[in-house]
Amino acid sequence: MLKNDLLLRAAKGQEVERAPVWLMRQAGRILPEYRATRAKAKNFVEFVKTPELAAEVTIQPVDILGVDAAIIFSDILVIPEAMGLPYEMIEAKGPRFPETIQTQADINKLKIAEASDLDYVMKALQLTKKNLDNRVPLIGFCGAPWTLFAYMIEGSGSKTFSKAKQFLYTHPDLSHQLLEKITQSSINYLKGQVASGADLLQIFDSWAGVLSEKMYYEFSLSYISKICDALSPLVPVTVFAKDAHYAVKKISETSCHSIGLDWTIDPLKARKEAGNKTLQGNADPCLLYASEKAIIEETHNMLRSFGKDKYICNLGHGLYPDLDKEKVKLFVDVVKEFKW
Amino acid sequence: MLKNDLLLRAAKGQEVERAPVWLMRQAGRILPEYRATRAKAKNFVEFVKTPELAAEVTIQPVDILGVDAAIIFSDILVIPEAMGLPYEMIEAKGPRFPETIQTQADINKLKIAEASDLDYVMKALQLTKKNLDNRVPLIGFCGAPWTLFAYMIEGSGSKTFSKAKQFLYTHPDLSHQLLEKITQSSINYLKGQVASGADLLQIFDSWAGVLSEKMYYEFSLSYISKICDALSPLVPVTVFAKDAHYAVKKISETSCHSIGLDWTIDPLKARKEAGNKTLQGNADPCLLYASEKAIIEETHNMLRSFGKDKYICNLGHGLYPDLDKEKVKLFVDVVKEFKW
Repeated sequence: MLKNDLLLRAAKGQEVERAPVWLMRQAGRILPEYRATRAKAKNFVEFVKTPELAAEVTIQPVDILGVDAAIIFSDILVIPEAMGLPYEMIEAKGPRFPETIQTQADINKLKIAEASDLDYVMKALQLTKKNLDNRVPLIGFCGAPWTLFAYMIEGSGSKTFSKAKQFLYTHPDLSHQLLEKITQSSINYLKGQVASGADLLQIFDSWAGVLSEKMYYEFSLSYISKICDALSPLVPVTVFAKDAHYAVKKISETSCHSIGLDWTIDPLKARKEAGNKTLQGNADPCLLYASEKAIIEETHNMLRSFGKDKYICNLGHGLYPDLDKEKVKLFVDVVKEFKW
Repeated sequence: MLKNDLLLRAAKGQEVERAPVWLMRQAGRILPEYRATRAKAKNFVEFVKTPELAAEVTIQPVDILGVDAAIIFSDILVIPEAMGLPYEMIEAKGPRFPETIQTQADINKLKIAEASDLDYVMKALQLTKKNLDNRVPLIGFCGAPWTLFAYMIEGSGSKTFSKAKQFLYTHPDLSHQLLEKITQSSINYLKGQVASGADLLQIFDSWAGVLSEKMYYEFSLSYISKICDALSPLVPVTVFAKDAHYAVKKISETSCHSIGLDWTIDPLKARKEAGNKTLQGNADPCLLYASEKAIIEETHNMLRSFGKDKYICNLGHGLYPDLDKEKVKLFVDVVKEFKW
């Protein structure tokens, strides 16, 4: 049994003594310990594929920062790769797909991934679970189908994802075919993650914000909803749709348990829209550049706005690489020590 | 007197026969005629600084696309340059500042720009005004102080503008000093634009979306408001704060005349929040990749949502470079031919 199950209780809307806290991108980026482990692999993709290394960096923030959950170290792009579309990670630039999806034939060639195609993630989860020794819950994750689709068409990151959006506008039928294949792969993948020890799942829709509201519901949320339906009977599921400010109510109508918010969303407004779903977020990552006084004050304000129950404290996006570890730890401590 | 003053009447909330239409980034990018003129200058900065060339490309979309307004071809970064911080434009990458602002001394060294420091823009406006022969109104513009600040600190474009935001968090006093200097420069610049023939002004806050709501009001909208107060007694002023979805009501409380919306904002919701201010926008630029049928249908839906009055039809962001000129012209024609 978990020694600290605050996250699971908060996600399910059960009573808690205090709000749990974890940080997106806590595994990696800011910790010197991470960079030391990272140096053992020849490149990012190999790093992700080595269960011992992935498990090691997954546990580091639990030891060093004292967060209330571990999130498995991996990448959302393992799914396209398992479907037959490999990616590279270009240092300081981001992901790149040497081949992209452009035609019906390209989509036909993609396989629906099974959990066994992502055995290295399953092994990393199992090893992490064992080494965590039930101290805190282990979070599994995947990218939302739209976000994966965006990379698979565009071939890399983009400010506008105009090629991926052009594909939605010009090939709506093909788009739905591809999104469906990604969705089925993601469901298989997440079921495997739960079988391998994930206690909670998060779906990251990093590029939600480039779509209009209408297109978001048609091409993104409908597929997220399918994933929630398949997984939420097993473990709590969090949906984080960055910059989809209009979608809180619609996300709350899926079978997810909690809704991640970026820092442009007002907590009180989100509470009204989210019904009885738990909320997660939403400090500006840049707050952690500020003075200790400002960090404490703003974090207290945020905690008061969200309230103790049905709340998971986090940032509104991932940690930035140049943040000071001590400031990040301060944020975690402030949440843990807050007098509710 | 203007032969077509639809834009001015719409901006002021006066009656119109139909909604006016123009397109952000209409001068440049998609037109082969633009690229021919562009080739006459040795680089982008020189191009912007040559009034004859700037006037030529400003008028091209009026002739070719039939839009209801011209917007002067220039760049928002002419203000930092006039203050003493020159920029470069790197092909396919975007702007870069060889020197950035980091200290009190850096801020002290900046001058408050006068309209005369931007004589080349004044000349371009005068020449455009003359050659337009009052066919349509001429729009002048500037970047919002926060957006210029973001480039001046960060030194280039960025997904997060984390350095610029770090400066806000760690040096709020210096930030306000710099924003005030940019604001004063922008007011001088826009007054000069009006004196040189601008019939309407737009303030582009391209990087509004990276700030939290609270920081947006403190570090951005307060300065935009000062600019509106100085200019709106002279000509109509439009504020376009991209991705500041929460701010429509607060923007409507400034002395601006109209509010630009990106494509993630629901027209009906914006109407409720905008009081009696005119709205501008907000088609997804990627809609113009779609079939003719889809363009016509979605544009009609948008027009019906906004309604004829207090409305300026536009995209929700600038045109993308690879859009088909014929599709863009179709969008303009659909708006002009709509039966209200």
